Amino acid sequence: MGQVITFGEVLMRISPRGKKKFIQSNVVEFFFGGTELNVGISIANFGGKVKHISAVSSDFIGDAAISYINKFNVDTSSIGRSTRPLGVYFFEVGAVMRPSNISYNRSHSSFSEIQPHMVDWNEALVDANWVHWTGITPALSQNAFDILKKGLILAREKGMTVSADPTYRQNLWNYGKDPKEALIELLKLSTVFIGGINEINEVLGTNYSYSNDDFLIASKELMETFPSIEKVFDKIRTSVNSSWHKIRARMWNGKEFRETADLDITHVVDRIGTGDAFAAGLIYGLRNYDDYKAMEFGSAACALKHTYEGDINLATVKEVSDILEGNISGRFNR
Amino acid sequence: MGQVITFGEVLMRISPRGKKKFIQSNVVEFFFGGTELNVGISIANFGGKVKHISAVSSDFIGDAAISYINKFNVDTSSIGRSTRPLGVYFFEVGAVMRPSNISYNRSHSSFSEIQPHMVDWNEALVDANWVHWTGITPALSQNAFDILKKGLILAREKGMTVSADPTYRQNLWNYGKDPKEALIELLKLSTVFIGGINEINEVLGTNYSYSNDDFLIASKELMETFPSIEKVFDKIRTSVNSSWHKIRARMWNGKEFRETADLDITHVVDRIGTGDAFAAGLIYGLRNYDDYKAMEFGSAACALKHTYEGDINLATVKEVSDILEGNISGRFNR
Amino acid sequence: MGQVITFGEVLMRISPRGKKKFIQSNVVEFFFGGTELNVGISIANFGGKVKHISAVSSDFIGDAAISYINKFNVDTSSIGRSTRPLGVYFFEVGAVMRPSNISYNRSHSSFSEIQPHMVDWNEALVDANWVHWTGITPALSQNAFDILKKGLILAREKGMTVSADPTYRQNLWNYGKDPKEALIELLKLSTVFIGGINEINEVLGTNYSYSNDDFLIASKELMETFPSIEKVFDKIRTSVNSSWHKIRARMWNGKEFRETADLDITHVVDRIGTGDAFAAGLIYGLRNYDDYKAMEFGSAACALKHTYEGDINLATVKEVSDILEGNISGRFNR
Amino acid sequence: MGQVITFGEVLMRISPRGKKKFIQSNVVEFFFGGTELNVGISIANFGGKVKHISAVSSDFIGDAAISYINKFNVDTSSIGRSTRPLGVYFFEVGAVMRPSNISYNRSHSSFSEIQPHMVDWNEALVDANWVHWTGITPALSQNAFDILKKGLILAREKGMTVSADPTYRQNLWNYGKDPKEALIELLKLSTVFIGGINEINEVLGTNYSYSNDDFLIASKELMETFPSIEKVFDKIRTSVNSSWHKIRARMWNGKEFRETADLDITHVVDRIGTGDAFAAGLIYGLRNYDDYKAMEFGSAACALKHTYEGDINLATVKEVSDILEGNISGRFNR
Amino acid sequence: MGQVITFGEVLMRISPRGKKKFIQSNVVEFFFGGTELNVGISIANFGGKVKHISAVSSDFIGDAAISYINKFNVDTSSIGRSTRPLGVYFFEVGAVMRPSNISYNRSHSSFSEIQPHMVDWNEALVDANWVHWTGITPALSQNAFDILKKGLILAREKGMTVSADPTYRQNLWNYGKDPKEALIELLKLSTVFIGGINEINEVLGTNYSYSNDDFLIASKELMETFPSIEKVFDKIRTSVNSSWHKIRARMWNGKEFRETADLDITHVVDRIGTGDAFAAGLIYGLRNYDDYKAMEFGSAACALKHTYEGDINLATVKEVSDILEGNISGRFNR
Amino acid sequence: MGQVITFGEVLMRISPRGKKKFIQSNVVEFFFGGTELNVGISIANFGGKVKHISAVSSDFIGDAAISYINKFNVDTSSIGRSTRPLGVYFFEVGAVMRPSNISYNRSHSSFSEIQPHMVDWNEALVDANWVHWTGITPALSQNAFDILKKGLILAREKGMTVSADPTYRQNLWNYGKDPKEALIELLKLSTVFIGGINEINEVLGTNYSYSNDDFLIASKELMETFPSIEKVFDKIRTSVNSSWHKIRARMWNGKEFRETADLDITHVVDRIGTGDAFAAGLIYGLRNYDDYKAMEFGSAACALKHTYEGDINLATVKEVSDILEGNISGRFNR
Repeated sequence: MGQVITFGEVLMRISPRGKKKFIQSNVVEFFFGGTELNVGISIANFGGKVKHISAVSSDFIGDAAISYINKFNVDTSSIGRSTRPLGVYFFEVGAVMRPSNISYNRSHSSFSEIQPHMVDWNEALVDANWVHWTGITPALSQNAFDILKKGLILAREKGMTVSADPTYRQNLWNYGKDPKEALIELLKLSTVFIGGINEINEVLGTNYSYSNDDFLIASKELMETFPSIEKVFDKIRTSVNSSWHKIRARMWNGKEFRETADLDITHVVDRIGTGDAFAAGLIYGLRNYDDYKAMEFGSAACALKHTYEGDINLATVKEVSDILEGNISGRFNR
Repeated sequence: MGQVITFGEVLMRISPRGKKKFIQSNVVEFFFGGTELNVGISIANFGGKVKHISAVSSDFIGDAAISYINKFNVDTSSIGRSTRPLGVYFFEVGAVMRPSNISYNRSHSSFSEIQPHMVDWNEALVDANWVHWTGITPALSQNAFDILKKGLILAREKGMTVSADPTYRQNLWNYGKDPKEALIELLKLSTVFIGGINEINEVLGTNYSYSNDDFLIASKELMETFPSIEKVFDKIRTSVNSSWHKIRARMWNGKEFRETADLDITHVVDRIGTGDAFAAGLIYGLRNYDDYKAMEFGSAACALKHTYEGDINLATVKEVSDILEGNISGRFNR
Repeated sequence: MGQVITFGEVLMRISPRGKKKFIQSNVVEFFFGGTELNVGISIANFGGKVKHISAVSSDFIGDAAISYINKFNVDTSSIGRSTRPLGVYFFEVGAVMRPSNISYNRSHSSFSEIQPHMVDWNEALVDANWVHWTGITPALSQNAFDILKKGLILAREKGMTVSADPTYRQNLWNYGKDPKEALIELLKLSTVFIGGINEINEVLGTNYSYSNDDFLIASKELMETFPSIEKVFDKIRTSVNSSWHKIRARMWNGKEFRETADLDITHVVDRIGTGDAFAAGLIYGLRNYDDYKAMEFGSAACALKHTYEGDINLATVKEVSDILEGNISGRFNR
Repeated sequence: MGQVITFGEVLMRISPRGKKKFIQSNVVEFFFGGTELNVGISIANFGGKVKHISAVSSDFIGDAAISYINKFNVDTSSIGRSTRPLGVYFFEVGAVMRPSNISYNRSHSSFSEIQPHMVDWNEALVDANWVHWTGITPALSQNAFDILKKGLILAREKGMTVSADPTYRQNLWNYGKDPKEALIELLKLSTVFIGGINEINEVLGTNYSYSNDDFLIASKELMETFPSIEKVFDKIRTSVNSSWHKIRARMWNGKEFRETADLDITHVVDRIGTGDAFAAGLIYGLRNYDDYKAMEFGSAACALKHTYEGDINLATVKEVSDILEGNISGRFNR
Repeated sequence: MGQVITFGEVLMRISPRGKKKFIQSNVVEFFFGGTELNVGISIANFGGKVKHISAVSSDFIGDAAISYINKFNVDTSSIGRSTRPLGVYFFEVGAVMRPSNISYNRSHSSFSEIQPHMVDWNEALVDANWVHWTGITPALSQNAFDILKKGLILAREKGMTVSADPTYRQNLWNYGKDPKEALIELLKLSTVFIGGINEINEVLGTNYSYSNDDFLIASKELMETFPSIEKVFDKIRTSVNSSWHKIRARMWNGKEFRETADLDITHVVDRIGTGDAFAAGLIYGLRNYDDYKAMEFGSAACALKHTYEGDINLATVKEVSDILEGNISGRFNR
Repeated sequence: MGQVITFGEVLMRISPRGKKKFIQSNVVEFFFGGTELNVGISIANFGGKVKHISAVSSDFIGDAAISYINKFNVDTSSIGRSTRPLGVYFFEVGAVMRPSNISYNRSHSSFSEIQPHMVDWNEALVDANWVHWTGITPALSQNAFDILKKGLILAREKGMTVSADPTYRQNLWNYGKDPKEALIELLKLSTVFIGGINEINEVLGTNYSYSNDDFLIASKELMETFPSIEKVFDKIRTSVNSSWHKIRARMWNGKEFRETADLDITHVVDRIGTGDAFAAGLIYGLRNYDDYKAMEFGSAACALKHTYEGDINLATVKEVSDILEGNISGRFNR
């Protein structure tokens, strides 16, 4: 099977251990992540072939980032090096009614200031049959938007699947481009829509509610507006508090509306990257199963991610499948 | 607004990481705390001006203690230095049905053996308009009791508010003074009572139950006995087990009885200092809001404290207020 | 009271901290454990006299193992030294629907390759009145089986109590011996049976269900088949998921069937060794209380073990008794 | 005595523990530092009154930075907050012939993008009698240069001492200003020159050697060119390798040339901030002792700093003085 | 061979990791130690039978202390439990010219306030043939002095060897007893003197220099004054700085003066307990070798101790002997 | 340039932090290594293309091992998976006169029990032009020897360079094969000899001394006996103690004898893998420079490795070259 291509920023995440705040301890841990990279690595952990495209710093931090991605057998050969520093984010994990805190240092990072010459899409896509993008990348800079769009155009020309997770994060869009217009340009090049009512309302300028009925109508309107989009998948989170979530998913694929049951995550370890885990599980599923099973697989992958520290879903296909088969009691084989 | 003054012992808390016991690992962590200091630092974290008065050791441990208090912008200029060592306590965090273990090394500490010359109340109170005391300080030694009483007398002469948290901890009272008499002397100098049925029964010699009806009658009797007391606030904890608590509060301010709803703390991180967090939130609230909102603020502050490691509530006004506005799902802003 | 003898492998357990996987961090922790040793140390923590018999490596890892056992005041004077390395297992702690992972490196360990000359049963049993064995030891090698059987024969000759926890772990039995036959030979030398329907079905070749009715019939059939067995104790685990378990126990002692209520372990810390904690609590109980109270004690001990990191139950008699008296709210004395 | 004012960037330093590289472990430690801040905190550790002026981020990292500076009793009341992130640097500690590695992420930091309104020099200098600057600040941005120059002009108008450490770090100067011209403008406002042959050659455009003879001639030429400069102090490092350095100092104060003996640092712990420790010791010395003793004090302070992890010299006056009295055997009093 | 008895305080040592100070990190490590215990454990590590007598707290810290001593196979059956807390000391490790810092919290500890009923010397000495004491124990309290003296009297009555390390630490002697008189009383009960010119001058009131000539004269005068003393051993430390020491030893046994060569400890890891390591090596040596070889063994043991973290010498007889045979290149066998 | 092939065991190395022993702390660190892998990764760190061939366990430890090798961009596609566990070694780092301790658990590991079908040499060598082997692999098992020999035969048939580091470690050879004969068989297939007098004496049965004269004669005799060998390189270590080494190298390439100067490693961090670093530097050098410069490069690489924790040399070509250019003062560029 061909490679899945992800294109996006590699961020260094720095956090205190356990539930501590930075003011409490000078011992911290780092991982690398980034929404598109998280998707890529998770697919690689499921055994898929993945290439991540990015621009990282040309110092020992950039070396460590590439080395980290190599660990997971993701192809790093198209990652450019830059004299700008790698983006960083600081993260304090919340608990119960205390929300997590996050602070970004990314606005002039190696990726935000990526240069056109750093990505040769013709070469990068040579083994690919799927490209995944999110709403983060086009929010970062004109260059990031332009390069992404160029890649999607080529991918569509080659007939690849293009999955879109057009998360809209308002405070990232600082370079002048109108977010709605940008996302519309990119959705016109996409075939799978991973997102919910918020994202649909954003691009359609509508005001649908979270009900299943509205989801169905909104999805249909979305697919009329963007005829290339064939399927819409939505992950729904219900939170008791920071430490206790429930996850389910729903879909409209032009033929049927389906919904999964809630998965109950009674003791959340780390919720960063759980949306990416859903996207990764879904993409893996769509490449291997039917639409409904793919959505179930994504939903279970998303739930499992809540149990891993760091941005990345470390689950294997077997671990996700076990949940789908109802093995959620946590028994272990010796 | 004037300074809030707290007077009490600074303790070094030493604990293994996670749920470990001392017998399991020789790597441990320390924080500084102490019931009155916890109140002071929490108020400072809410933006209040606070001075803490104490006596710490004149070695590098005392230096570290002062440095720790400085971190939180609490005025340390009235802290005396002593040739006696700083008090220490060892703490093993429990879980589920396993209770936490605590062991004190404080009976001959720098604070227990505080000398009268170490506190100059006239100078210490120069910017103050509020003094807070607890039942721990008068339990430690005759000197601690005498110095506290002297300070309260001066505070009342200057018309300051005096809040009392007359926690009664039986096994601390070893220097000969009768606890009941001591607390009565100090309550006569107090205007806000922070405590529940146990504390009221202790000083009145009564036998009221935990019911709201009894709380109301007991509060009235307390305010008759101590006419300076204008308000009574009580925090109520319900425990499923060591890891799962609920918190609510109730009050009688001479005019109305009010009660808050339970806050459900499904995953307790550290319960030390949660009573102090209630007192701090309440005091901050009384200085900025009406009585009921102050109690609500104290109750939410108390609940939040259960999510921080260490003795001290690190929450800000915004974080507490978010809970009061019903945002307990733990969503985070990026 | 005489010594309790445990005979079995000492394993070094190596795990990442918190919920991490080996791929995520190169900082790990080790403890020593092993099913029979866990039972022995837990009984010693209750104040019982215990000797553990084993064979450990003659290097600094073996030194560390013996030193670890010494910590708990368990007699190590009958532990032999071997040129083979100590057995190791690697462990990743799961959470919620993620199961824990375990991987053993024990098949040629110092204990699996134990030599007959390493155990002098006459000397080893000189102060003993109780021997405990489990289904792990006879599964490891012919020598381990033979030495165990020899010890049980001598113990019975001397009229000692022999408790059996004939856990059947299929993938350990690699040396050619038929598991069922082996367990039957050893059960013929046993007086207390600690195990459930699975173990009974295994040795009887029956197919009883988990119902209390079947448990009663199965126990009776077991005691007919093995007339030396006087009592049957069974611990039942119900799992919400990896992080949330419930524990109860039931018994048939030839006279009465009894069952305890469920203990609700809402936040599991570490489930390794919880079965051993049940056995240890039960054995301690049988030596000090009546059968039902012994079972209750074992059940509460088992529940408590879920709150300790590592293989070993660190609870004291007082801590277990507090639970039996209904103190499960986790309040702590200062 | 008046406050010493330092003005410069606060950087978060992140490093692996021990001699590790980022590629080897995801557990790292952070400290805060920055060349001018290091000088300020060290003077505060000697008991001097110090205010540090800067601009830090308005997030929890900026909070942690201010809290860190508060620890050392340095006045943080003139530190502005910015929506830009705090500068960060990554650091790998070398050993023997392996040099340390450093990588900066500071070019768009809260301090590099400091705004004129963030510093009110009239208010900031109200208690001051000394201002210290280094060649780092003017290298960062036009705003940083302008604000610094404005402060120095006011300081000189008020007759304060201005000490200059005009370290020239070539690859920092990216905003267009000519380094030589910038430093000349600032040196015209300075009275104490802390720097060596390299710095003199840079601003004079000369080519003096490291010999004492050349140092004397160069110093005289410097003082002729910049008549406000009254004294020149130079610290000389001799390196066996990364782990073994020697430090001595020399001076020309218009009247006498003096030189200290080498201090032999046989086991370097951390060399970052050792130049700042020299400047801090020297400034403290010049405010309390004669010129030669000040230089000796600076030199011993510099040597001691090599024994502390992090950017900051934690030594007290007593600890430095002990070295000056020849106590370098490391004996400790119990 | 009989047991060696050590009697003295068990202290909990708490230190930051590496070269850090308490002000720099809240992660610290603890070990247990105490000068007499260090001697005892080291002898046990050489394979000797040892019993340590003390009084520790009756809490989980006291449990951890006993458990720690058990690790090393030292008999803890004569250790009493007390309601007073265990003594603690805080320690910051120096480097190069920075001395280590130490701060004690022991003046009202479980051992300082030991009660006569806690030690039953008749029972304690039943398997003993050697008692070792140091100048620390009699300095702590009248009870500690009295109990020690009582034990030495009994030991001498039974004809045991009594070794004395009468270290004089001035600031410990606070209970009123004259140090010189106390040490004289105890030296009259001793047979082996481990100490140098300082200790001899202290008890004789003389003023000898460190020269070998003076050592010889002083030793003779000591042995005339205290006729029970048969041998004098002195360890001499030369310090380049905190990180680089040299160790040698000399002796007078009434027949011959001997001296060892310097052992060069180029990279000191931890110097606490190195004197105790000398005493332990010497005592082990005197029980197994001739006087000169015993002194060499003690000297090499002392040198080796500088390479272990914590108070205790972990070296084995083989490791010490290897040094005596000239193997100091650090080669290891695989 | 073609791939360098390394074939050998992947070991998990587990060590306490700093200078601790296993008995002192239960927090440990792991790295992966193994003599041939160390060579391979180091060459990859120099930018060379490398494939490592091995057999690792089919569990999460094997996954972590492969992931670790991937980090360094070494081709893992020819690594087989086995049901046997990965080999482990435990390591305690010595200091000064204390040697390091090492203990292996490898005799039945996934690699020792490697099966012929796990290595397809035709496929494995398809991009290769160099094979490196050491004396460890043939010592482990008949299968390991046979597979290695088969690979060397094919490599020679294809005209590849074969470098040999025939380290002789006596206590590994337990499967019956005569070490001398085995090494002779393999040396007949080798073209570069990396080893010293000990190795030459072993295979020739001679008794040469360490002198340069003897080295020259021995090398000539070696090359006569094994005509395929074209060059002999020897690395010489001089140890002051465990913490202070010196390294130099010498060579005979059939034309000239050359020798490098000593490199002085005054503060050894970790000496494991320093021989492998020499081999890797030498091999990299021979592929890029002349023989003498290659030896110098290997020697400097070896010296640098002493400054990295773990088995692997993390140095880059630039870092090694800097040393060759005399930059050993540890200065770093900012």
